[in-house]
Amino acid sequence: MRIKTVISILGQLIIIIGVSMVFPLFWAIYYSEPALPFFIPMLFTILTGLGLFYFVKPSGEVREREAFAIVGLGWLVAALFGMLPFMLSGTFNSVADAFFETMSGFTTTGATVLEDIEVVDKGIIFWRGMTHWLGGMGIMVLFLALLSQITPGRMQMFKAEVPGPKAEKLRPRVRETAKILWTTYVVLSLTQTLLLYLAGLSLYEAFVHTFGTMATGGFSSQNASIGAFSSVVQWIVIMFMFLAGINFSLYYQFLNGKRFKAFWRNEEFLFYMGILLVFSIVLLPVIASVYDEGVLRTTVFQVVSITTTTGFSTTDFDQWPDYARGILVFLMLIGGCAGSTGGSIKVGRWLLLIKCGIRELLQLIRPRAVMSLKSADGLGTQEMTSNVMKFFFIYIFITAISILIVLPSGVDLITAFTVVAATIGNIGPGLGLIGPAQNYAFFGDGYKVFLSFLMLTGRLEIFTILVLFLPTTWKRS
Amino acid sequence: MRIKTVISILGQLIIIIGVSMVFPLFWAIYYSEPALPFFIPMLFTILTGLGLFYFVKPSGEVREREAFAIVGLGWLVAALFGMLPFMLSGTFNSVADAFFETMSGFTTTGATVLEDIEVVDKGIIFWRGMTHWLGGMGIMVLFLALLSQITPGRMQMFKAEVPGPKAEKLRPRVRETAKILWTTYVVLSLTQTLLLYLAGLSLYEAFVHTFGTMATGGFSSQNASIGAFSSVVQWIVIMFMFLAGINFSLYYQFLNGKRFKAFWRNEEFLFYMGILLVFSIVLLPVIASVYDEGVLRTTVFQVVSITTTTGFSTTDFDQWPDYARGILVFLMLIGGCAGSTGGSIKVGRWLLLIKCGIRELLQLIRPRAVMSLKSADGLGTQEMTSNVMKFFFIYIFITAISILIVLPSGVDLITAFTVVAATIGNIGPGLGLIGPAQNYAFFGDGYKVFLSFLMLTGRLEIFTILVLFLPTTWKRS
Repeated sequence: MRIKTVISILGQLIIIIGVSMVFPLFWAIYYSEPALPFFIPMLFTILTGLGLFYFVKPSGEVREREAFAIVGLGWLVAALFGMLPFMLSGTFNSVADAFFETMSGFTTTGATVLEDIEVVDKGIIFWRGMTHWLGGMGIMVLFLALLSQITPGRMQMFKAEVPGPKAEKLRPRVRETAKILWTTYVVLSLTQTLLLYLAGLSLYEAFVHTFGTMATGGFSSQNASIGAFSSVVQWIVIMFMFLAGINFSLYYQFLNGKRFKAFWRNEEFLFYMGILLVFSIVLLPVIASVYDEGVLRTTVFQVVSITTTTGFSTTDFDQWPDYARGILVFLMLIGGCAGSTGGSIKVGRWLLLIKCGIRELLQLIRPRAVMSLKSADGLGTQEMTSNVMKFFFIYIFITAISILIVLPSGVDLITAFTVVAATIGNIGPGLGLIGPAQNYAFFGDGYKVFLSFLMLTGRLEIFTILVLFLPTTWKRS
Repeated sequence: MRIKTVISILGQLIIIIGVSMVFPLFWAIYYSEPALPFFIPMLFTILTGLGLFYFVKPSGEVREREAFAIVGLGWLVAALFGMLPFMLSGTFNSVADAFFETMSGFTTTGATVLEDIEVVDKGIIFWRGMTHWLGGMGIMVLFLALLSQITPGRMQMFKAEVPGPKAEKLRPRVRETAKILWTTYVVLSLTQTLLLYLAGLSLYEAFVHTFGTMATGGFSSQNASIGAFSSVVQWIVIMFMFLAGINFSLYYQFLNGKRFKAFWRNEEFLFYMGILLVFSIVLLPVIASVYDEGVLRTTVFQVVSITTTTGFSTTDFDQWPDYARGILVFLMLIGGCAGSTGGSIKVGRWLLLIKCGIRELLQLIRPRAVMSLKSADGLGTQEMTSNVMKFFFIYIFITAISILIVLPSGVDLITAFTVVAATIGNIGPGLGLIGPAQNYAFFGDGYKVFLSFLMLTGRLEIFTILVLFLPTTWKRS
């Protein structure tokens, strides 16, 4: 492990976090709130970052182990510095609370320990939302620029996402591609902010809810979440949650000459559309029995919000009939497309697993036939299928063990199951004690820290975080 | 598909079912109950079987497709003829009820639609228990003589189970091996019957509960299940549930000169022991807070009963704290060892998956290192791992979809989840509306048939049943 290389790169990350604090500082001043809870952490964070960057010289290039350390520690460091404004403002009762909320922000989970959001300073709520947006952008970088270069499996995933050029030749182009994707992320965000502003939200509210949407995060400034706003605002949020759940490389292809073919010829996108459509249709009659108006909007909103792992709500869906609640739990395990800001298991993985299951059946009755998974994207080599199956098992296994860890806190079975699914899947609210009208405040500090790590584990697709716990990773070389 | 070959072999199976009915007939006469509900089906079943066997000439050898049809239809046919005594005795309210109960018996599930078992004729209860025992024996045959010869994947599983001779050379020895295993099954069953008799049960009760134990089934003659008997009886049942959950080929090895090394050198057995020990220890303090006496016995009984997928109970564990109930749900997904009469995912698969997960982690930080899964049994080639991962995904996927199918019946989420886990895992009772003090009677006929097929799907390890739904399977050749 080349510790110095890791520290130097983390220094740059810390600078970015510090500079970002200028935005909540602006809103705090604008709304005549105390400015020091942002000014002091900003200075401290930027200076620390600069110090690490200038005084620790990298001791070699980044290899696999360093890359894992940078990614894993990067999110941890971001949370530790990002929580400073929360600490100084006195919004939270404990360090664990502030850490939980910041991690929930950066991992785009959207689980909160705040019992009343509307009494909190606007600057704090803005920074809380902004951690989502930075985290969402971080996912884009990770997915496209960093992780894709590390393991053969992930490289193949990348190859599948950005067809055309051979994966080996992609390396020099990653920086350029990443730039285009960032630009898309920024442009989509600005568009949503503008639309929300035109729909009647203040610029501040528009920004906060764009952060929650585009990062598929879920932090709102309102206790009633998006339920506090007009139906026009709700439809805008639905649209952008949907867009944020799509593989961002499809936007790149769209702009790069493929136009709408980029979408219609992408199996994962079609499957994603299919899931949203089918479950909206299945839920519709159930929801129609609960509400008198806005049935379609309420149904589609919740299906899209949960599937994309955003976690916004327009109603307390924990009060729905158990059939509807069961469907929501199922959707919690699906997640957005690969290469989106959405979390959980992800649509692409489900698609590959289902294809593999079908092939297995056919193979059983014709054991001598040679069958291979093929798709327009060149998706589905043996190795990739195997990686996805391993991921699936480890995801379910960690979920099961985590439920056993959460249960002794005294929560009921449904709360325990959805707490784990909602944190590892980066969704936010679940059912029972952590329903959309509830929050995570009642958990003890130890559980809050555990759940924070579960969010991070889910966000970094499990392996990166698990690797950090292996002693071998930290051996000097 | 050579239909005639299939029918001819099914004929032999039907004869066996018919001949077995002589035993409940005996008890019916012994207890002066109506004998016709057994005598008529016995004659009809035997004659039908003989007819099919003598008049339909096999039209060729058994290939993969025929084998699947024989296995899948075999259990269906067994259930259809096996339900005749239930129908004629008037014990059940509908055909669906009788079908459900018989399928629950043959698949060694132990889920019941009877609301009061103790008012039912003794002959019927005996036949109900006997379907367990025949089904449990069927598993032995399937596992060792039939399925093992079909697919390369299963052949490897077999190779792993019975080390020593090369798999290719096993075919001629299968009949002999199967005989030894049957004998073990019969000897163990007679031993348990004797012990239960010595512990004070009537011979009739001893037989019925031996059937439920050795087949890891769970049908009892008492509404309170094993809770109706003394603590000595309960410990005997614990011991034999434990023995029934072990891979039967280890008994073969034990007798074949390996002695206790057969057990101590078998990783799956050690892992099975470990799971039972660890979860008993974890549960102990929780159970100690609920009961004043018999804490150890109650704890161990329930852990062993659920893990082996037997489903007997000595108490209403649905009244336990949610932490304990959560652990039981977790155990429902583990199951017995491969090659035992236990169902669910099975210990050997979990072991392989966990090993694979650990290897994956190590591989990530040392991508160039060549690592392979190895065990004393030669377990763990690439193909086998891949097959187990596919199985795991399909098992979880069918479970998830089945929960969505069960929910519209109006049950709550916990009932829905455990109904599916308890039927596909061949356990029997679950939590909520199907807790150990409850039953499956309240489900509509459609759901009862669906759940019957779920039991069969679990019993035949999924693929065999799914294959039967493919049109290709039934093409003429």
